[in-house]
Amino acid sequence: MFFASDNTSGVPAQILEGLSRANDDFVAGYGNDPVNLALRDRIRALFDAPEAEVFLVATGSAANALAIASYCPPWGAVFCHELAHINVDECGAPEFFSNGAKLVPVAGAQAKLTPQALEQALTRAGKGGVHQVQPALVSLTNLSECGTRYTVDELRAVCAVAHAHGLPVHLDGARFANALVAEGCSPAEYSWQAGVDVLSLGGTKNGLMGVEAVVMFDPAQAWEFQLRRKRGGHLLSKNRYLAAQMLAWLDDDLWLALARHANQMAAQLQDGLNQHKDARILFERGGNMLFVDLPRSCHRALQDAGAKYYLWPDHASLDCPPDMAVTGRLVTSWCTTDAHIKEFLRILGAAL
Amino acid sequence: MFFASDNTSGVPAQILEGLSRANDDFVAGYGNDPVNLALRDRIRALFDAPEAEVFLVATGSAANALAIASYCPPWGAVFCHELAHINVDECGAPEFFSNGAKLVPVAGAQAKLTPQALEQALTRAGKGGVHQVQPALVSLTNLSECGTRYTVDELRAVCAVAHAHGLPVHLDGARFANALVAEGCSPAEYSWQAGVDVLSLGGTKNGLMGVEAVVMFDPAQAWEFQLRRKRGGHLLSKNRYLAAQMLAWLDDDLWLALARHANQMAAQLQDGLNQHKDARILFERGGNMLFVDLPRSCHRALQDAGAKYYLWPDHASLDCPPDMAVTGRLVTSWCTTDAHIKEFLRILGAAL
Amino acid sequence: MFFASDNTSGVPAQILEGLSRANDDFVAGYGNDPVNLALRDRIRALFDAPEAEVFLVATGSAANALAIASYCPPWGAVFCHELAHINVDECGAPEFFSNGAKLVPVAGAQAKLTPQALEQALTRAGKGGVHQVQPALVSLTNLSECGTRYTVDELRAVCAVAHAHGLPVHLDGARFANALVAEGCSPAEYSWQAGVDVLSLGGTKNGLMGVEAVVMFDPAQAWEFQLRRKRGGHLLSKNRYLAAQMLAWLDDDLWLALARHANQMAAQLQDGLNQHKDARILFERGGNMLFVDLPRSCHRALQDAGAKYYLWPDHASLDCPPDMAVTGRLVTSWCTTDAHIKEFLRILGAAL
Amino acid sequence: MFFASDNTSGVPAQILEGLSRANDDFVAGYGNDPVNLALRDRIRALFDAPEAEVFLVATGSAANALAIASYCPPWGAVFCHELAHINVDECGAPEFFSNGAKLVPVAGAQAKLTPQALEQALTRAGKGGVHQVQPALVSLTNLSECGTRYTVDELRAVCAVAHAHGLPVHLDGARFANALVAEGCSPAEYSWQAGVDVLSLGGTKNGLMGVEAVVMFDPAQAWEFQLRRKRGGHLLSKNRYLAAQMLAWLDDDLWLALARHANQMAAQLQDGLNQHKDARILFERGGNMLFVDLPRSCHRALQDAGAKYYLWPDHASLDCPPDMAVTGRLVTSWCTTDAHIKEFLRILGAAL
Repeated sequence: MFFASDNTSGVPAQILEGLSRANDDFVAGYGNDPVNLALRDRIRALFDAPEAEVFLVATGSAANALAIASYCPPWGAVFCHELAHINVDECGAPEFFSNGAKLVPVAGAQAKLTPQALEQALTRAGKGGVHQVQPALVSLTNLSECGTRYTVDELRAVCAVAHAHGLPVHLDGARFANALVAEGCSPAEYSWQAGVDVLSLGGTKNGLMGVEAVVMFDPAQAWEFQLRRKRGGHLLSKNRYLAAQMLAWLDDDLWLALARHANQMAAQLQDGLNQHKDARILFERGGNMLFVDLPRSCHRALQDAGAKYYLWPDHASLDCPPDMAVTGRLVTSWCTTDAHIKEFLRILGAAL
Repeated sequence: MFFASDNTSGVPAQILEGLSRANDDFVAGYGNDPVNLALRDRIRALFDAPEAEVFLVATGSAANALAIASYCPPWGAVFCHELAHINVDECGAPEFFSNGAKLVPVAGAQAKLTPQALEQALTRAGKGGVHQVQPALVSLTNLSECGTRYTVDELRAVCAVAHAHGLPVHLDGARFANALVAEGCSPAEYSWQAGVDVLSLGGTKNGLMGVEAVVMFDPAQAWEFQLRRKRGGHLLSKNRYLAAQMLAWLDDDLWLALARHANQMAAQLQDGLNQHKDARILFERGGNMLFVDLPRSCHRALQDAGAKYYLWPDHASLDCPPDMAVTGRLVTSWCTTDAHIKEFLRILGAAL
Repeated sequence: MFFASDNTSGVPAQILEGLSRANDDFVAGYGNDPVNLALRDRIRALFDAPEAEVFLVATGSAANALAIASYCPPWGAVFCHELAHINVDECGAPEFFSNGAKLVPVAGAQAKLTPQALEQALTRAGKGGVHQVQPALVSLTNLSECGTRYTVDELRAVCAVAHAHGLPVHLDGARFANALVAEGCSPAEYSWQAGVDVLSLGGTKNGLMGVEAVVMFDPAQAWEFQLRRKRGGHLLSKNRYLAAQMLAWLDDDLWLALARHANQMAAQLQDGLNQHKDARILFERGGNMLFVDLPRSCHRALQDAGAKYYLWPDHASLDCPPDMAVTGRLVTSWCTTDAHIKEFLRILGAAL
Repeated sequence: MFFASDNTSGVPAQILEGLSRANDDFVAGYGNDPVNLALRDRIRALFDAPEAEVFLVATGSAANALAIASYCPPWGAVFCHELAHINVDECGAPEFFSNGAKLVPVAGAQAKLTPQALEQALTRAGKGGVHQVQPALVSLTNLSECGTRYTVDELRAVCAVAHAHGLPVHLDGARFANALVAEGCSPAEYSWQAGVDVLSLGGTKNGLMGVEAVVMFDPAQAWEFQLRRKRGGHLLSKNRYLAAQMLAWLDDDLWLALARHANQMAAQLQDGLNQHKDARILFERGGNMLFVDLPRSCHRALQDAGAKYYLWPDHASLDCPPDMAVTGRLVTSWCTTDAHIKEFLRILGAAL
């Protein structure tokens, strides 16, 4: 019963097969190989973006931080939700890669930036004043840190505010596939057509070993990005092994199937939790994440039975009275099974 | 006929099998998993270093830059050979990760630092003066950039100079295995017993997809390293896939067998080249790299026949008279075959 | 009628005389001169801190950023009030000098950190987790950005929380003198005895041309600070001209007299404002700053008459209805005169 | 007998008078004041560069590092002479301000870059390759570190090479005035007309307390520079005191008179040294610096008599046989007198 993160799961057989296929023979290093070329073309087609540049790295933190740094000078400000992964969970990677830019936390319900909140933050940002860091970029997360999802319209509205202030938009799409299949639109509609300028397209949380693509819809920063990637130690020489995984993942829409399954497992879990009045779902489920308030005693019972998941927020604790509500963060993945869900709900039912 | 780099080769079947074995089930992320634990213990045993800490990253540049930054403050100086990979081929990764430290290039024949040259550089370094960057670290490369090898005695002597000045020693061991089997000593003798404080143990050039271990023989900097690794985007969540590869590589001394084969192929190539008076080997072969002067016309013939390798140094060119000598850099790998060597020599023989 | 900032005023005659006295003859550069030595000893005596190290720089941003960087690694977190000058008015200087540390904004009434708010922020900070920046330093401002003042007891209480979490405390004392004379305690009581580990002692806003002293009560970081100062371009070769100003400023307690005068002028201004029911003072005056709500029409009248001051916060504007209240920020200085105050109040009275 | 550096001297009376004149009344801070405006216009006229932007800082290291960072990205390479002050005497300030750029040392006789050496270095620099730092800037020093001087023709020739490779040129003019009066040309001829894009115009070594102007002949980078200056803590709030000094220095060509005097003192010293066959001048004197080989015993006699100067290079020592030649570095200044020179020569004559 692993609900701690979708990054505790393995990879589907197709990914291993993709690695095997790419393993034959010598090929040029550093991404100058046929597999990378094929992947780039596949992603361009998928996103209906023939000019886009595609670069692979092995972690989401690298994808985000390199993308951010390519659009934000050291004296720049990146506007993001106060709970954003880049702000609280990457040990300052964006600050490191940008050489000291400032992340400006913006509040918002459901872990989403609203056009109003962004507009207010940008208006107050001190643009043009030499004493203030200068607004440079807006970074969104979809699925958000609370597992909610921007609708296409919401995404478009918040990007419009950024663009009206002359700022490009980065989207941290560590769970882009989960959001996409839930929203039911096309990759293009959910990215550049809505106003996203650069996307961290996450593969790791949805079935790859450690592969993320940075998709730059406007290639103007592409050369700078490549230098930053190399300098950051993120240019893998045997790059084909990243590309091969992602190609296999896109083949036959495997990535969408994996995401759909994870979302479906979360939906089943949600249905089960809703049967119990003492279990309170906190946010609107956008994909494969759930935040649920449970009596502290239930958490104990679940954890004693081997369920793995985090309390939320990070500093939450079970050192409290047995009937006090504590939030649990439950993440399903491509390899979560009916049996996992049933077992979790069974233990919970017994404990409530 | 791929002699461009050992990083253009694939991986042996055992590595793919190792990935498959590690793929079962959910495991904790970020290196807190049984495979990583097993690998750490294996490396400790292998190096006879029960206190050593072992951290995995996906590239050699990351291993080097993170190791260097953990021992060198922003105002520090890293003494290395002027041809060192960290100095000329990593787009400033050490400067980036150390937040602006200075690499001090030291000259030396055969791309090796001598105790004398290091002593002189350190004596002149301005230690204690506020106007000068402060000596912080010595970084060696073995095999060197010219394919030569430090003997155990040479390594010990140069480390002794560093230690006498209070500086720790980093060893860039991108081709550590190739050096080790050629030198015929133990991993411990060739690292910490000779004075190496932190080792970048390269797997990628010797049969892995992109796995390098940083082995810290003194664990004092281990926590700082881990924060730097995370902040640098180099902490893979599904870390087991790095560890699984390296475990499979160490199993049954596969890594040594792969390195021996690569070296043997280089030896055969060297023997063949030595048959031709117009082919002049430049440096003492230490493992699996050769630098050979050939008439420009031979390079043309080889390249027309599909041989892949680089001229050396980077700015060398074939825009010169046909009989002018130009240096080629030839690297063999674990999957170079007799047939590759013979074909190369055949074409060369015909051209000479 | 200059109330924009205490840094728009000039310097007293004694400072120019101090410069003249120091101008004779050749002296050693970079602070190794008798004037600097005398100043260091004077400050040690003044603060009853015989081990303290004293370093001069020309700006408050440099003093703060260098002090912060000397106590905070790149992956560190600096806890400060959300309105702190270091957070909003230095264009990211702390992030630059610390190579990308994160400033964690903490809310608090009257622009002061409370022990409770700091305790909560530190408890939630994720210490020991590799995914989070690590708590490194607490930075306070006294006088605060809203012109309020920490009492000695308040200062002691908040420092105690920091120390209980193992964090040192930096005090941005750009207006330390103004706070000190208002609080009526000794420099030692108001700094290290209350728990301050490193102090930016501001001279510029209180009558110097551009001189700030960093006073390190614990000299352990002194050598690192000196290297950072040099590397930051903040080690003036003709350092005597900084020291000479500050010596003249300390002579005969001139610095205290200047601060007392500025505070007294603010008190007069406050008394005058309190005569008008439409003028509302926002915060408890701690020294020489006042924040006052006035009808927009009054601001227009004052500015038309040549009064210089800023609206607050920065993004405030007079594009609003005439009777809407807008906050003005009024700062008095050592050379503000009765006449300035009276003229300001006269115009205000006419406008109300 | 202070010959250690021109920065051990004081300032002429005119500078103190300039400070007094600027001290009246309140003025706007941060350079938005009439004195700064007047200075900017004066420098524009002086250099016949009506579009130039002028920014003041208090140290030469700041001027150089900020100028360099404004033209060089973190992954950039700055080509400079191996002895350049920025490379060996600023504790890594250029690396700090540029966030980790690399200084590429180029050899050259008389501490000057030749067009040939620069051409070769640039040709080999790996432009366009992602593994190498990218050529970004050429930085020259005039007077050089060895006290030599670029002729206008030499300057033009080396700038032409830089421009042909698409690189701008920075000139470290810490002793620009000394070079200028010796060369006998106009400021424009010796800067932008020869190809200099950004100049560090040094005042400190030629009679100011700590004032350097960065003159950007192409203002495209001016806004970035201002943000970097603020972020670097180098924007003095009471900026008028920098501008007032430099204005007084330019008044009636005082700066040229001061430089001429210093040069003349060096010429007298040179004449005196040339009387002794055991004193050997090392480089062509370009202005106010001399490097002279003397028997070790002479240095002892001079130092015993109170002469202050450095041996050269930094690591030189008097721990050697009495008749061994050791190099002394002698710098004259605006306030060196005939008497100083005569006394120095007298002691030397007695010792030889």
